[in-house]
Amino acid sequence: MLAGLTFLGGLLGDNEIADALGTAADVRAMLRFEIELVRAQAIAGMVDEEAAAAIESVCTRLVPDMEELTSATARDGVVVPELVRQLRNAVGEPHGRFIHLGVTSQDVIDTAMALKLAFVLDVFNSRLSSVLSQLDVLQSRFGGNRLMGRTRMQAAVPITVGDRLKTWKSPLQHLAAELPRQRERVLILTLAGAAGTSEKFDDKIFAVRQSMARNLGLLAPDYVPHTDRGRIADFAGFLSRLTGAFGKIGQDLVLMVQNGIDEAEISGGGGSSAMPHKQNPVRAEILVALARYNATLLAGVHQALVHEQERSGSAWTLEWLLMPQMIEASGLSLLHGSALLSSIERFGDPA
Amino acid sequence: MLAGLTFLGGLLGDNEIADALGTAADVRAMLRFEIELVRAQAIAGMVDEEAAAAIESVCTRLVPDMEELTSATARDGVVVPELVRQLRNAVGEPHGRFIHLGVTSQDVIDTAMALKLAFVLDVFNSRLSSVLSQLDVLQSRFGGNRLMGRTRMQAAVPITVGDRLKTWKSPLQHLAAELPRQRERVLILTLAGAAGTSEKFDDKIFAVRQSMARNLGLLAPDYVPHTDRGRIADFAGFLSRLTGAFGKIGQDLVLMVQNGIDEAEISGGGGSSAMPHKQNPVRAEILVALARYNATLLAGVHQALVHEQERSGSAWTLEWLLMPQMIEASGLSLLHGSALLSSIERFGDPA
Amino acid sequence: MLAGLTFLGGLLGDNEIADALGTAADVRAMLRFEIELVRAQAIAGMVDEEAAAAIESVCTRLVPDMEELTSATARDGVVVPELVRQLRNAVGEPHGRFIHLGVTSQDVIDTAMALKLAFVLDVFNSRLSSVLSQLDVLQSRFGGNRLMGRTRMQAAVPITVGDRLKTWKSPLQHLAAELPRQRERVLILTLAGAAGTSEKFDDKIFAVRQSMARNLGLLAPDYVPHTDRGRIADFAGFLSRLTGAFGKIGQDLVLMVQNGIDEAEISGGGGSSAMPHKQNPVRAEILVALARYNATLLAGVHQALVHEQERSGSAWTLEWLLMPQMIEASGLSLLHGSALLSSIERFGDPA
Amino acid sequence: MLAGLTFLGGLLGDNEIADALGTAADVRAMLRFEIELVRAQAIAGMVDEEAAAAIESVCTRLVPDMEELTSATARDGVVVPELVRQLRNAVGEPHGRFIHLGVTSQDVIDTAMALKLAFVLDVFNSRLSSVLSQLDVLQSRFGGNRLMGRTRMQAAVPITVGDRLKTWKSPLQHLAAELPRQRERVLILTLAGAAGTSEKFDDKIFAVRQSMARNLGLLAPDYVPHTDRGRIADFAGFLSRLTGAFGKIGQDLVLMVQNGIDEAEISGGGGSSAMPHKQNPVRAEILVALARYNATLLAGVHQALVHEQERSGSAWTLEWLLMPQMIEASGLSLLHGSALLSSIERFGDPA
Repeated sequence: MLAGLTFLGGLLGDNEIADALGTAADVRAMLRFEIELVRAQAIAGMVDEEAAAAIESVCTRLVPDMEELTSATARDGVVVPELVRQLRNAVGEPHGRFIHLGVTSQDVIDTAMALKLAFVLDVFNSRLSSVLSQLDVLQSRFGGNRLMGRTRMQAAVPITVGDRLKTWKSPLQHLAAELPRQRERVLILTLAGAAGTSEKFDDKIFAVRQSMARNLGLLAPDYVPHTDRGRIADFAGFLSRLTGAFGKIGQDLVLMVQNGIDEAEISGGGGSSAMPHKQNPVRAEILVALARYNATLLAGVHQALVHEQERSGSAWTLEWLLMPQMIEASGLSLLHGSALLSSIERFGDPA
Repeated sequence: MLAGLTFLGGLLGDNEIADALGTAADVRAMLRFEIELVRAQAIAGMVDEEAAAAIESVCTRLVPDMEELTSATARDGVVVPELVRQLRNAVGEPHGRFIHLGVTSQDVIDTAMALKLAFVLDVFNSRLSSVLSQLDVLQSRFGGNRLMGRTRMQAAVPITVGDRLKTWKSPLQHLAAELPRQRERVLILTLAGAAGTSEKFDDKIFAVRQSMARNLGLLAPDYVPHTDRGRIADFAGFLSRLTGAFGKIGQDLVLMVQNGIDEAEISGGGGSSAMPHKQNPVRAEILVALARYNATLLAGVHQALVHEQERSGSAWTLEWLLMPQMIEASGLSLLHGSALLSSIERFGDPA
Repeated sequence: MLAGLTFLGGLLGDNEIADALGTAADVRAMLRFEIELVRAQAIAGMVDEEAAAAIESVCTRLVPDMEELTSATARDGVVVPELVRQLRNAVGEPHGRFIHLGVTSQDVIDTAMALKLAFVLDVFNSRLSSVLSQLDVLQSRFGGNRLMGRTRMQAAVPITVGDRLKTWKSPLQHLAAELPRQRERVLILTLAGAAGTSEKFDDKIFAVRQSMARNLGLLAPDYVPHTDRGRIADFAGFLSRLTGAFGKIGQDLVLMVQNGIDEAEISGGGGSSAMPHKQNPVRAEILVALARYNATLLAGVHQALVHEQERSGSAWTLEWLLMPQMIEASGLSLLHGSALLSSIERFGDPA
Repeated sequence: MLAGLTFLGGLLGDNEIADALGTAADVRAMLRFEIELVRAQAIAGMVDEEAAAAIESVCTRLVPDMEELTSATARDGVVVPELVRQLRNAVGEPHGRFIHLGVTSQDVIDTAMALKLAFVLDVFNSRLSSVLSQLDVLQSRFGGNRLMGRTRMQAAVPITVGDRLKTWKSPLQHLAAELPRQRERVLILTLAGAAGTSEKFDDKIFAVRQSMARNLGLLAPDYVPHTDRGRIADFAGFLSRLTGAFGKIGQDLVLMVQNGIDEAEISGGGGSSAMPHKQNPVRAEILVALARYNATLLAGVHQALVHEQERSGSAWTLEWLLMPQMIEASGLSLLHGSALLSSIERFGDPA
């Protein structure tokens, strides 16, 4: 949830996305990484089959001690060392030492994020399709209606509702068309070892990468993704363009339902504690707020491009503070956007 | 907590501040507003004593239906209409109608934030004092040690550790000295009614404001605070300057403990999953991340200065998405800053 | 000028402020620093009177070789080393060696900025006073008129034009009241030497600082200002709150002059190349753009709080890329704001 | 130039890019738009050949009255109405009325930006190729050298210089590979008329667009580009990723040339006014500053996605305040990056 107050959960939270990025999903994704790692290493002959089976079995059923995870993370800055320690304890020797072989915290965490994003992007894709269909429905219901075209906030020349709808639709179509490209860039395996050189893998690295990537449903990139955060920054930009597209829709609707303008009517507007007669265009306003929110956070994600050396603790942590929020804000924008479009009851004047 | 993952709670969360801003505290503060409102209105003769007593009694013990609050907030954009509805239900007639008399959601919510901030600023003040004392302790332990002064990342001229400590201390001293001014600006009562004109109060508004403000421990401002968000933007800047001051300390320590530089030593550094020998300066890195985080979010708070007319739903909501995060990040920065300073074991070379 | 295209100079440039911050003013201020430095050092007995007189005389009439300054600055990252070289050449020996004694580039450049700002803040103060008077005039002309109070972009309850004007005025009054505090923080002498320790001055530093500060009309701070940029970040916030206050006015006017709302009329609106009938509220729109511009840039100034060690080349340069722009944007906002208020011909409905 | 002071021109200005975006280039591009418009309209039968020839002839030789342009732009918010007026005056009747037929200011200005960008992107492409070649040269000179891999600012495991170089190269390779896609999105014709509906063109609009686009070397988009600014926001993100990639290189070099670390040596470092012995890594620092600068400005470009209705004056103007600066900063980053890489004289330790 984007805001800490429980009762804001429906207004400023997207449960589906929050869950998809949440603790349980994250632990699951990290353990999946360790499973597929040891499996691929067994195939490559780096680990014997028995060890791999033992590790996989423990990873499948481990319920981490969250208190320990939390206090260790406060010290280590990342959760992985303690998670691996708990895994090793659970597996015991002689197999425990084969867990997490040759990899580093960032391999686990960045891959886990990719795994979570695979689901998130499916959700976004499906929500985006729905919104595009809704726009088509609005087009058939109201497309021929007359509307005053307005530029620089002044009446310009008459247009149709369909003309306005086209300007709402095109940015969303562009984003839908771009989604596969974002998937290719973001849904990647990170497997590069302590300093990005996979030095513990020798020539097995390619085989292990291919095998892991295939099993995880990710791509294996041909570069070291630890410090090259361009894909993250680009994806954050994609998210901000998404909320921006809905921000434009929200802003337009806010202006159209003004008393005195009355170019449209939406149902289900928000009530006021002081003025029961009001119908506040709450969802439309939230779309504007989310657009400005993501635009704001985007700057921080780009600040995090300046990674020192083989890994920057501060730049990486900065991403953690911003990316989940931007992702949830985008999901939320799709939800509110869809609900808002559904609530349009009148739009323009019959021709 | 700044990040959604449970196990990041000790690294990226400040429980004390999160609680002080959280749901329970917020509901308590909103109910306190309604109590003091009706009390003051009773004194001013706007409400009879019996009604006031009945309302106060219910406000004191109401446990709101959170599910209803949540779903209504998703519709109304603010929690207050539903909270007032639940209060009125609980009080019943004939007194229920005197709840929330003449005020608006923003009066309640902004005042509740001020009430929560009163506590938060006490915590900050006390933490800041501790950090300043810690800097004095460092001065007595290490102040006379030699250190290479470095400008533009190159060795400049020799300085002492005390010289460096002075540059850490002065921004924090400035902030400590500024805190009372921030309190005066931020810890205010908002009581202005539907459109800021207190039109339901007639000439009683001044008396009600004085009385409420006194009882709530807030100041009664001489302007309409609904759309004048300068104090919020200024306070956000204060917070970002606070995290910025710690960011400088963190950055310096990160540079000092580099292998090969070794100008300082800190204990309790973070472990690595791949390299057990490492001592990562995690807290110092987090301070840098928090500085960049608040600097980023600050821009959004200033975007929210552009309030339309008598209240902007989108600008106000944008504040909710940013201010609690900035406040907690600042608290966290004080916590990590203090712990980091405590962990310095060597600093410069004995003279 | 904020934008590079000449013909945007009247729309997006504030000549008076641009000149006050420009090359000629900057060189003048830097030379003034060197004059007052050597004068104060002569009084303190660090330099003999004859040398001081020779240096002052050259500083008074030096016309720097701009080409050399430019190419040297590209190499050195700061203009001062080459400016001092030209000065030393012009003075010759035996006095030349006494130029710039014990100080560093940042002392000169930051003090020069303070000297330029002294004038800028006078201009701002005077423009702000005018705007406040204009608001009083609008109050007497239109204050009693009726206006629909609007919250969340929906009609709320009737107010008066005077009610709206109060919400425009209070942020500007707060800023005017804060200006003296900003002056105290920003208009300071920077004189701290290579690494902030004034190591070449011995115990003369206090006397030299007092004397220089007095002659330059600045305050002598009791801290090392090289890396403590809190005052700059705070001042940037002040500027953004200023443009934000005008952004709110601009946004309100844009909404009021909408066709169909027609709550106000402004003269001199912008023409359109396609629609000669239109009267675009250009100045009001620019006020919104400037508010969002400064809010954006503010984040970068706060990023620059993270100064490494005794001076960060990158953080300091980042300030140069942002502060002059923010200052000019603020001046421009005052200009457009004033012109916009003057152009209001109708405002609300006669009571 | 990014900063107003003349002598900063070599440090903070990219003359080639500044000229490519400057007044002369802009006027030329706008007149080219008008020429190709009337030509295409003549072919489409909307304008007779004689008028088209007369208009083209005047556009080819017009030297606009810049003073008039400037003062009219201050009033109209855009330069086009006055430029068209001057053109019409110069052409006279009966042909003058056929100038700018059916189009709007935004068609001219946005297309002119695309025309200027076509050249800019050629320059970027060529500079990027050079930098990639330089990285290959560094690889052959130093690639086999030993370097300590560093994560979280602590020594991790030994790597080679080649490993580090790969992390510098991959973001730049990604950007080079993405450039054609950016060209396709950004180098487009804007031709949509007053409110985006091309209402004055009837069914001729497609033919006119195809013909103009071909002659201008641009693509004709299948959407109304007036308010769909996704391509601009995406391009701004591209620019910030470019400066971010160089920021990482700069940050690494700054850290490597630290006294005490000495992992690399660069020639031509900046001199200091106080400490002649110093070699400041000025270009590397500037790369960091430019990365943070563009990351900052990016947020503003994304704020400008929220366009009201058929054209937002404030959102559009906000782009003007940010995009040319981001573009020049990117060009400058390429320049400094290239010069910095050329200046590396030692890098790591011979194996």
